[in-house]
Amino acid sequence: MTIANTPEPPYYAVIFSSLRTDGDNGYGAMAERMDALAAQQPGYLGVESAREGLGITVSYWRDLASIRAWKANAEHLVAQQTGRSTWYTDYKTRICKVERDYGLDDAFASRTE
Amino acid sequence: MTIANTPEPPYYAVIFSSLRTDGDNGYGAMAERMDALAAQQPGYLGVESAREGLGITVSYWRDLASIRAWKANAEHLVAQQTGRSTWYTDYKTRICKVERDYGLDDAFASRTE
Repeated sequence: MTIANTPEPPYYAVIFSSLRTDGDNGYGAMAERMDALAAQQPGYLGVESAREGLGITVSYWRDLASIRAWKANAEHLVAQQTGRSTWYTDYKTRICKVERDYGLDDAFASRTE
Repeated sequence: MTIANTPEPPYYAVIFSSLRTDGDNGYGAMAERMDALAAQQPGYLGVESAREGLGITVSYWRDLASIRAWKANAEHLVAQQTGRSTWYTDYKTRICKVERDYGLDDAFASRTE
């Protein structure tokens, strides 16, 4: 997985932090399917994900309407329900507006502000 | 690592996504020191971190002023500089305003909105 190639801010981020239950219980296949499905949604800008005990998945979106539509997607609703009942012992979803960003190439700007 | 126990929104998140160079090169000790130092800063609300190839660290802050002050911290500036020169092949920092959040306990609200 690489760093998402997002456009100039403003755009939106959904930070999904989670702790898993033991065992796969269909989680791996669902996660793969949700990644593919999310990428087809209008307003999708990219995703970044890592798990090391705690899992953090950040998906990036053009606007709040795109996030709302993805949250209400029928297949995604089933995954959310199974997440609550089966896959996660705890999670937190944070809806954020990305106001600015900078990277390694912007080091000079970052260093002098 | 657990899910950060953040207050009611609005608050701020700094999403730091990175890819590491090979070898430790003092990274582990610095990361530990920066975690401890960040936690002492005014406006610090918590941190979540995971690396699986891609590393994602999300720190949470009361406001933009707190983020700015932490970014300008002298010891942190040295770490940022060494990150650019030695530890990271690529990174992206995103400054975000958390507008809303919900967790497993808010499932009913989340399901019906």
